Order: sequence, then C-alpha cells, then structure tokens
Amino acid sequence: MTDLLPFVADLPLVDHHCHGVVTRDVARADFEAMLTEADTTSSLGTSLFDSLIGLAVRARCAPVLDLPEHASAESYLDRRAELGAAEVARRFLRATGTTDFLLDGGFRPDALTTTGEFAELAGTRAHDVVRLEQVAEHVSRGSTAQGFAAAFADELGKRAETAVGFKSIAAYRVGLGLAGERPSAAEVEAAAGRWLGAGGGRLADEVLHRFLVFTGLDLGLPVQFHVGYGDSDVDLHRCDPLHLTGLLRATRDRGVPILLLHNYPFHRNAAYLAQVFEHVFVDVGLATHNAGFRAPAILAELLEIAPFGKVLFSTDAFGLAELYHLGTALFRQGLSDFVRAGLDAGAMSEVDAVRLCALVGHENAKRIYRWERA
Amino acid sequence: MTDLLPFVADLPLVDHHCHGVVTRDVARADFEAMLTEADTTSSLGTSLFDSLIGLAVRARCAPVLDLPEHASAESYLDRRAELGAAEVARRFLRATGTTDFLLDGGFRPDALTTTGEFAELAGTRAHDVVRLEQVAEHVSRGSTAQGFAAAFADELGKRAETAVGFKSIAAYRVGLGLAGERPSAAEVEAAAGRWLGAGGGRLADEVLHRFLVFTGLDLGLPVQFHVGYGDSDVDLHRCDPLHLTGLLRATRDRGVPILLLHNYPFHRNAAYLAQVFEHVFVDVGLATHNAGFRAPAILAELLEIAPFGKVLFSTDAFGLAELYHLGTALFRQGLSDFVRAGLDAGAMSEVDAVRLCALVGHENAKRIYRWERA
Amino acid sequence: MTDLLPFVADLPLVDHHCHGVVTRDVARADFEAMLTEADTTSSLGTSLFDSLIGLAVRARCAPVLDLPEHASAESYLDRRAELGAAEVARRFLRATGTTDFLLDGGFRPDALTTTGEFAELAGTRAHDVVRLEQVAEHVSRGSTAQGFAAAFADELGKRAETAVGFKSIAAYRVGLGLAGERPSAAEVEAAAGRWLGAGGGRLADEVLHRFLVFTGLDLGLPVQFHVGYGDSDVDLHRCDPLHLTGLLRATRDRGVPILLLHNYPFHRNAAYLAQVFEHVFVDVGLATHNAGFRAPAILAELLEIAPFGKVLFSTDAFGLAELYHLGTALFRQGLSDFVRAGLDAGAMSEVDAVRLCALVGHENAKRIYRWERA
Repeated sequence: MTDLLPFVADLPLVDHHCHGVVTRDVARADFEAMLTEADTTSSLGTSLFDSLIGLAVRARCAPVLDLPEHASAESYLDRRAELGAAEVARRFLRATGTTDFLLDGGFRPDALTTTGEFAELAGTRAHDVVRLEQVAEHVSRGSTAQGFAAAFADELGKRAETAVGFKSIAAYRVGLGLAGERPSAAEVEAAAGRWLGAGGGRLADEVLHRFLVFTGLDLGLPVQFHVGYGDSDVDLHRCDPLHLTGLLRATRDRGVPILLLHNYPFHRNAAYLAQVFEHVFVDVGLATHNAGFRAPAILAELLEIAPFGKVLFSTDAFGLAELYHLGTALFRQGLSDFVRAGLDAGAMSEVDAVRLCALVGHENAKRIYRWERA
Repeated sequence: MTDLLPFVADLPLVDHHCHGVVTRDVARADFEAMLTEADTTSSLGTSLFDSLIGLAVRARCAPVLDLPEHASAESYLDRRAELGAAEVARRFLRATGTTDFLLDGGFRPDALTTTGEFAELAGTRAHDVVRLEQVAEHVSRGSTAQGFAAAFADELGKRAETAVGFKSIAAYRVGLGLAGERPSAAEVEAAAGRWLGAGGGRLADEVLHRFLVFTGLDLGLPVQFHVGYGDSDVDLHRCDPLHLTGLLRATRDRGVPILLLHNYPFHRNAAYLAQVFEHVFVDVGLATHNAGFRAPAILAELLEIAPFGKVLFSTDAFGLAELYHLGTALFRQGLSDFVRAGLDAGAMSEVDAVRLCALVGHENAKRIYRWERA
Repeated sequence: MTDLLPFVADLPLVDHHCHGVVTRDVARADFEAMLTEADTTSSLGTSLFDSLIGLAVRARCAPVLDLPEHASAESYLDRRAELGAAEVARRFLRATGTTDFLLDGGFRPDALTTTGEFAELAGTRAHDVVRLEQVAEHVSRGSTAQGFAAAFADELGKRAETAVGFKSIAAYRVGLGLAGERPSAAEVEAAAGRWLGAGGGRLADEVLHRFLVFTGLDLGLPVQFHVGYGDSDVDLHRCDPLHLTGLLRATRDRGVPILLLHNYPFHRNAAYLAQVFEHVFVDVGLATHNAGFRAPAILAELLEIAPFGKVLFSTDAFGLAELYHLGTALFRQGLSDFVRAGLDAGAMSEVDAVRLCALVGHENAKRIYRWERA
C-alpha cells in the first residue's frame, strides 16, 4: 500500500450506500460467491481469489485478522472462522473510519443485520435508505389497481419519517430507459392492474418504477439509482446512466438530489450528468473494492469532469465484512493518489486538496441527506 | 505543472475549433456559468471552482494576471475585473502560441467578438467556420418548401468563399443517428415543408441536418461535427460518434475531410473511426480544459489507435478568455507527457516525437483546411 | 522498452486467436494496408507508420531484422525485402515464445499459410479454429432450406474432429444483438430459405448466425466471438459485447466456454461479462499491437474486474509476421507492467504475480481448449 496523505488517512467518511452484513459464519464457496458480482465459481474458471479483489482481501484484510499480508486463502478463511463472524464484522467495520453508514435494507433482509444491529457492530451511526420497489411490492399485497398509488404514497410517507433517502432498482428490472414525464394517474392504475392481474410479486414495469421515483421525489428525500455494474441479473447495456437523461432533465428544477450509484464502467458518462444537472450526484462504489489496486484509476476518471461538490463516497458493501473495509481503504487510496498527483503537478494547493477530500468524503453527503432532520 | 519538452513548449498551434470571446466584464455567477458545461450553480452543489477546471484557472491562469498560483477565486475575479475584459482577453489569447484560430461564429454571436475583433485581440490570424444550421435557419425565413434546398445551397456557396470549413450541430438537435444516404430532393422538400409549416425557427430534422452535411461536402470544405460532450441540451447517448458510421462509410470516397469534435467520453470510439475511414479526423477539445490535470490521460487514450495524421488540436473555447489558454496549455501538457512516456519507454525516437507533435499541433490542420485558398 | 520481470520474459504463451501469415513479399502500400485496421492510406492523412503501431514496428521489429531501433520505414522495408518473407516470418514467429498458436483459417485462406505451414515456420504447434460462417457458406452450396441445418451440423461435426474451437463472425455480419433462445428448426429452415432463395453467398442473418453458435456449443468445443474493434466493415456500435448478454445468460449452464475476442474499446464491458458468467472468457488481442506502448493501459483496464482465471492471451495477428511479434511483446510488456504495479503497491506477492501470469499466459487456454484431446 502506498502511503496515504495524512489528511486522507484521517478523513471521516460517510458511506452513503451499503447494505447489512452477514453475521453467520461462511464457508469458502459462500465467501467466494459474496466476494464479487459472480453468483458462484465454476470448474471452467479458477477460484475467485484469483482476481484483484481476492488479492486485496489477502493483502489488506489479512492483517486486520492478525495474519501476515498475502496470507493464503485457506489460512485466511480458517482464521476468519476461528474469530467468528461477529468479531470479524466488528473489526472490519470499525477499521473503516466511517462515521455514518446509509443502509439499503431492501435486499435479502433476512440474511443480514438490521440497521440497529449494524450500528452496534460498527460502533457508530447507521441510517435507513428505503428501497422503493420493496415498499411497492409490500403494498401491492392486498391492494387494488385503483388503490395502489395512494396506498404506496401513504406507506412511503410513513417510511420517510425515519429514512434519509430512497433507492430505485429500476436498472435491475427494466433498465434505466425511463421516460421523463411523471406517469398520469390513469397510467399508473392501468400498470398496477396489469401487475396485480398477473399475480403481483416482483415488480418490473417501466411506468410503475417511474411512478415510484416521482413519489419519492415528492417527499423531498434524495433518490438513489442503481446504475451500471451489478450481478448477472443486470442487462448492463440498459444501465448506462445516460438513459436517464430525459428523467434528469425533467426533474432538475425540483431541488431534490438524485444519486447515481456505482456507474462503472459508465462512470465518465455519470460524471457528465453530475456536471450538467444541478441535482445529480455520483459515486463509484462497488467498483472500488472489486478493482483492488486499480480503484484509484477509476476514481480519477470519475473526477475528470464531475464537480467535487457532486461526488460522494460509498462502498456498496453487502454481506461480507471485508467489503466495507476494502471499499473504504481503496477509496482512501484512490483519493490520496488523486490529490497527490494533483499536488505533484502543481494543479492544486494543499488547502485545495484538503477541501476536495472533505467534500467527497463526507461534506457532500451531509449536505444532501440531512439526517439530523430524520 | 511538469516541465514541457522544449519542442512542445514552442510548438505553433492551429486551434481548429473555437468560438469568439466575451469582451464584457463578467460577474462570478456568469464566470462559473461559462466555466464548464453546467448552465448554472445550485445550492445542492458547491462552487464550480470546486472542479479540476476551477483548480486549473487558479493554478494556470492566475499567473497570467500577475497573481500567485492557486490564488483564491475571489482575488482572481477581482483582479480580472480590475484589468478589464479586453486586457484579460488579450493576455490569454496571446499566451496560447496559436498561429491560427478557426472560429465557429454560429452560437450567440451577439455576445461574442467577431472573427475580425478576435484576430485583433489575439494578434494573429482567425478564420471562419460556418455553422450549417445557422445558415439554414437564416435562409428558411422567407423560403418555401420547394425553394429551400436551392436557396440553402446558394447561400452556403457564398459563405464558403470566405470560410475554411463547415460545422454541423445535428448532435444537439437530433443526435448523430443520421442515415448514410443523401436525402432525395423530394425528401428534402417534404422535410422543409414540415419544418416551415410548423413555423420554422430552430431546425431539428434528421433529413435536413443530413441534407446540410451533404451540401457542405459538395462544396469540398471540411465538415466538422459536434460529437459527445456538451451542455445539458445534448442527449449524450445519441452523440456517440459510432452512430455516424453509416454516413462516414457513405462519404469516404469523396475526398472531403470530416472532423469529429470533442468526442469525450467516446474518444476511443472516435479514434477507431479515424483509423478505418480515410477522411475522418478527431480531437478532444472541450474535454481538455474541463479535465484540468487529467487532460493528458484523455489525450493518451485518443492516441492509442488514431493515426497521428488524423488527430488535430482544438480548444472549443467559448466566451471566457481563460479557456483558450487552459485548452492550449493543457493540450501541450498532454502532448508533452505522451511523447515523454513514449521516449522513456523507448517506443519512439526524438525525431519521431517531434514529427508527431508537429502533425497534431498544426500540420494536419494546415493540410486539411487549406486557408491559403480562402 | 522497460524491463520485463524475468517470469514474464520467459512465460510460455498460448496465442488462442490468430490467423495465417503472408509468405509473399509485400510492397509498402500492402504493408501499410495490413498494419492496422485501415484498408488503405489516403492523401488526406499521412503514412500509417505515423501511429503507435508504426512506431512499434520501427522500435521493436527492426532489431529482429538486424536493424537499429527506430530505423526508418524505408530502410525497414528494404531490409524486410532483402531477407525475404519466409525468413522474416520465421524470425518473428520464433521470437514470440509461443508454444501453441490457435489459427482461424477462415479469412482469405488463399493468401495465407495453412496451419501446417505456419507450424513449420514457427517451429512449434498450431491448432485449427473453425470459422462457423465459412462452413455454413460452404455447405450452403448445393443445400436446400430443408437440408441446411442437418448438413451444417454434419459438416461441423466432421471439422470438430481436428479442431480445438469454433469462431463466430456474427459481429461483422449482423452485429452482436443475437437473441438468447436457440432458433427452432422451422425458424432455421425459413431463414435458410430466404438466404438460399436470394442466391446464398455471404451469410448475414441473425437467426442463422445464432443457429451456427448453438450448433457449435452442441459439439462441446469453445466458441469464439469477434467482438468490438475490427476494420471498416464493422458497425462498431453493434459490436459491444453487452449485446450478447441474453445469449450468454441462456448458455451459461452448458459448461461450454465462450470467448470474447478483442473487445476494445468495450473491454471493461467484456470484463464484467467474464466476471458474472461462468463460461465467459476475454482477451484484448488486436488492440494490443495496435496501441503500441499504450497496450499496458488497456490490459490493466481489462484486469480490473475480470477474474484472472477468465483472461486469455491472443494477438489476432493476421498476415504480417510483425504482428505476432508485436502482439506478444506488447502483451508481455503489459502483463509485466501490471504485476509490477501490483507488487510495488503491495497488492500482491511475487507468488501471486507468477500465478496470475501463468493463468493468463497459458494455463487458462490449456484448460479451455484441451487440444490433447483433438
């Protein structure tokens, strides 16, 4: 690990998008399945430890579990089992230097810690981000086509009372080619009728995803979008953030932030949107830990044209405690390398560098999410 | 600023695409609004000085106004106002080392210098690039569906007498998904009929943009296309240069250069087109100054597969005098870094490096535009 | 050339995708036409020696022909003619350190060496990859709509006996937007009827390209796809590997490898597919030699999220003997630079670095293609 600049090593971070952690012990197959966006390994390939993130676990996580750097996968997993999942989670979460975690609790909640449990493990604050689709699917049970819109808005309003933001996973269901216009009440009712008529369940309807987003915006909380990189369920060619251009143009005057998550490998496209639309914010979470020592290259590309006031930090860590630590440590590395390059080139002063890091590390998130209010 | 190689520091440049400069004094809000492709700032974000281009203004422009590097935004703008816009323009334009500026005078001409005024401020030559859509919109007033094609061709022919090239902004109006075939006279008449029947004004019709381009090619002058990066009016996903493939394939045998401007973040796609089509030329203007100290990374990506005989320099500077200086200085930095990396890797000789820089800096432009003829 | 790590300099390589070599002498115009993906030069541009690959020929190939580094293009071509094409081929092929070449013999076979001739020139093993479309076009002569499917499957089965894999060039004919489902017998018959009814010849039909791929998968041999970068016949915007997502999802459980070739400039998209689909493998052949000293930057981008067990080496060299040498030498440079950066960052141990190189250099290819069986 190259040296971090001191003001980056000590930078308090807000992780504005992650998930709960798994507290059961995991065997090697489970560990590999949770390590990257691959569902599983296959005899066609090799171990997923053969990847930059696998190397990063052995290089950067092993010492946190009292092992030497580059410990073997076997000895790493043995030591992990010996310590137990709760102790492992505690160590990694507390190693992050994160003051506030924003948790999307909408995916596999049964397998993960609750927000409260997470905060306790991490020894710091955790806040709720509400997944729009989960609320919609919950409300849909027992709802009618006529009643769905009002029931959803009502339920989301209740959830908003204790949440700091919303999240759309339209990318996973229909892609990001959402129209710009708010759907009419009749369109929503018709779409809800089709959905419920087909038995309800997993929502995947362009009109309804769009309705969910506009309802979230009405409530004034920031709305996160999954964008780009994800698992094999994603049709990545439909998840370029540029497909959201129409919707972003239509919502730019509302004063409500929209946050484009992940974005890799379309992060330069996302940076463009963050520059030209007042309410658009971006990160490169998920890619950061997956790319291991290449994470700084990705962050540098994001920062080419994205204003520093529009870039946030997130890990998108899910399940494995290592991912919070890696996402954070590799983000710090990337930020430090970026400002060091700028300082070496005479492109910024140290005062500028400190300000840039504070904005991206926590100030932007605090300005956007305003959890003091929640 | 890392040291420039001497033959890059002294390289005469042709800026083959830029605009006039604003000569009125500008307040901070105006300055920020012209600095990047954002229309304005917002309380959701922070100052646009918080960006690589903002840092570049303070690092690279401040000394030209007799301030120390990294002067604050406030003191910079104060000093700028003190000197007055004309003196500021004179200083920055003359600091570029540009021998010839090619000006697209078609956007907000009332707010900007004319080509003649620009040349005087810069103390060097300036040439006209004619925006096809502006001519079409001008001609349309008082024209008929039947008469439009001939009237346009006639007017464009007159403009060509004192111009060195044409420019299409189809990207801003309908995207770059133009068909390859020349539209028939009947198609043009029908399209003109629809346009004029709807009251004329702002042109946005695939057939007509295509007709404009073919009419420009008939006159034998190089045709520039806005590609990729631009302001919030652009639907960037429709502005990938690859959408022009059919038109480029259809026009490759005409011997008339087509120049793809900007291209970011699709500059590798543009480089591919420049390699496989004889008449295609590329640059990364606009991105160069926006990306500040990251500009060299972008230029290096362009030069991976684009032949050196097909790459040009432009700033795409518009309005703010700083942008000519930054676009030029950062291009020199990128070119110097690129050939230095090649020299260090033993990938080229110094003779090769000098030749590469001369081609990209001015020789390609002089071979393509032939203003001695104009 | 920066120093190679010793274990990269000596790494045995499997070139899993290349073509035969030209054994006739070539004049300068022919040499330039074969050097890049441009068909020809034009007076609008300059020599294609003005490119990173042109510089690489003069820097890295000249010494193999006993000339000093950076010899002029003229003296290089003179020396090449003096030695004769066979000797030139022998020198370059034997300089590669490649143990096994996998040759796609389906493009311009009359102008190139056969696999046997190639192996003799190279002094090592060469294996056949069968181009699906060539077999289909061959079978179509004298076939009927009803009989085509069976005749093709029969002929491909025979070819499979001595081949190590198949290759699809759907990208060149219809793009990569192939549906996921296997076409029904009736769909294949109807498509064959349209094709043969129109006189047969060059195949370009989405249903039939898809049928070819599924037939290849039935035979259990790895199927290669041309993806991305190619000559001016390609519509590059239809060749993003993400367009294959549906087909990849539909075939992931078959246990048959699919190899995405080239991929530039979509190599990060390809890496994503290699991570999330068990049977997907990737390379950056063709780009490697075209990008000259920038090849390492491209390889590093590929390796960000692609598991090391899913990345292969290929040159995609065609015709010019120099391309095998450059593709190989620049790949070694890229691999060495990548692991050196990882070692310097403390991101991997030397044992890790050696394993990574062995996987990518030859182990993955040997596990996938299993030529001992052929």
